[in-house]
Amino acid sequence: MRIALDAMGTDHAPRPEVAGAIQALQESAADAEIILVGDEGLICAELATYDDVPTGIRVHHAPDRVSPEDSPASVIRRKPNSSIAVGLKLHKAGEADAFVSAGSTGAVMAASLFTLRPLPGVDRPPVGALLPTAGELCLLVDAGANIGCKSHHLVQFAHLGSVYARDAMGYTNPRVGLLNIGEEPSKGSVLTVETYQALLGEDGINFIGNVEGRDIVQGECDVIVCDGFVGNILLKFYESVAEHIVGLLRDEIREAKDQKLDLDHVFRVLDYAEYGGAPLLGLGGVSIICHGSSPPKAIRNALAIAARAVRAGLVQHSVEDLKS
Amino acid sequence: MRIALDAMGTDHAPRPEVAGAIQALQESAADAEIILVGDEGLICAELATYDDVPTGIRVHHAPDRVSPEDSPASVIRRKPNSSIAVGLKLHKAGEADAFVSAGSTGAVMAASLFTLRPLPGVDRPPVGALLPTAGELCLLVDAGANIGCKSHHLVQFAHLGSVYARDAMGYTNPRVGLLNIGEEPSKGSVLTVETYQALLGEDGINFIGNVEGRDIVQGECDVIVCDGFVGNILLKFYESVAEHIVGLLRDEIREAKDQKLDLDHVFRVLDYAEYGGAPLLGLGGVSIICHGSSPPKAIRNALAIAARAVRAGLVQHSVEDLKS
Repeated sequence: MRIALDAMGTDHAPRPEVAGAIQALQESAADAEIILVGDEGLICAELATYDDVPTGIRVHHAPDRVSPEDSPASVIRRKPNSSIAVGLKLHKAGEADAFVSAGSTGAVMAASLFTLRPLPGVDRPPVGALLPTAGELCLLVDAGANIGCKSHHLVQFAHLGSVYARDAMGYTNPRVGLLNIGEEPSKGSVLTVETYQALLGEDGINFIGNVEGRDIVQGECDVIVCDGFVGNILLKFYESVAEHIVGLLRDEIREAKDQKLDLDHVFRVLDYAEYGGAPLLGLGGVSIICHGSSPPKAIRNALAIAARAVRAGLVQHSVEDLKS
Repeated sequence: MRIALDAMGTDHAPRPEVAGAIQALQESAADAEIILVGDEGLICAELATYDDVPTGIRVHHAPDRVSPEDSPASVIRRKPNSSIAVGLKLHKAGEADAFVSAGSTGAVMAASLFTLRPLPGVDRPPVGALLPTAGELCLLVDAGANIGCKSHHLVQFAHLGSVYARDAMGYTNPRVGLLNIGEEPSKGSVLTVETYQALLGEDGINFIGNVEGRDIVQGECDVIVCDGFVGNILLKFYESVAEHIVGLLRDEIREAKDQKLDLDHVFRVLDYAEYGGAPLLGLGGVSIICHGSSPPKAIRNALAIAARAVRAGLVQHSVEDLKS
């Protein structure tokens, strides 16, 4: 087993790459040879800071580096000696069994597509993303490679996601859900209605039906299939929400020091009851919808925002704004 | 100012409604008369549990109640004496200036649309939702009423959202963002590319351009415009993520009791570095992309998952699966 690792990808390359590769070999996380691809001088200088470099580490020189200014589509042509292009060529030539990179997502995707080519039966190779849930990790496919998919693309994503969940994530019979805005087969867009029916009749897919935004974090399925537009928005949103909340927690912990931790602030930020319901817009009146699980505070706040909207003249302002 | 409040909407109606109404009047959150609409007997029994009921409370009898089994579209016709239908009729007739309900979202939307009617120039009235961010609240429009929008619908949403942000949320010049998968005008779907250009030329909209999933929680804009499909998925996802994280925190706090709180578990669940990068699927090889900000642990884990995929025979299995 040999893995080509782009050593020039991260913001602090090659330090995290070298450290990660050494950890992987030391912990047998990958009982592999790891080929660090990139600027030989920089990589060797970094390796020299370790007392003990595992025997499985190799270095393969690639003088060029892909920068954010490079057009993703032209990396292979314009930077054939970049760590991304060279690493993928090693994989293609069978000198490495896999390629890992923390470089520009667009560049790695375009170069991988060009070098490794789609498998037979794959029209639009998708990108997967792993989402933490209350249960196990969930694989989101497509996380942003393909916008404007048809149902047969989503069916391919379901197959590819199921195989990846089995082979790379260790799930025996991965449950596949279709991301949608309701459970019923008739819910959602033309795409989701068609895809639902197509997945129902598809062999080799453990299709459990539609899943909603709220089902994801509950861990209700192992593979979520969707168009890359909504997948990408969801992924970036989740990452940033997680970061935001961790940030809030760290702030509270730092401020609390040895005193009792006050998490009220964190809870308040996350507490929907603080906010005032969902307004219906564009109607000849003010109508506000609260959750069925609303506590008194949520009702109180919805009443307050309704009063504010009425007092300000929402409906009249809407009419005037649309006229102008 | 008189607000009609559906007293039969929440899961524990009319208790939270009565409590919320009393709080609103006591705190002058709404310096209003609040008309509790619903089963007079139940509402009065609940009011009787209070020593001191504010003078602004009124009760308006509506004997019927909308149940989850009722088709949302037929509430007005089939349950004209339901709290939703009666409350909206009070608003329509000018006996109330607004209507608030925690009843079935679909039923309240359909009944509001039927009773209050769209304003001139509004083709598809959207529903707004308030998202907590690192800054102020952000209004998401449309949060699920309209699937398959055209760009002129999204432009209307931008207008309606801006007016609501000013009148109900108190923003002076609300920044409007178009939800998309990249900043550049050319990014995204046909819908987002067209809408971007339409919003650029639109008077009365403070359009700040495309916003990505990660920008939302940062509070980069005050109104986010999108199709109801992605809006609904995003909204339900956010609510459930927030609930999930609050749940994790409460568990840790309960277990910790007076001991030092160990938040490592919570951080771990939210820590992307724990997981192993984004796989490209459907290619003739294994290619895994990590974040540019990856620490060594993330690189290590991506290497481990790549090794596992290779060892299991991911590419071969994908070929076989797509053939069958």
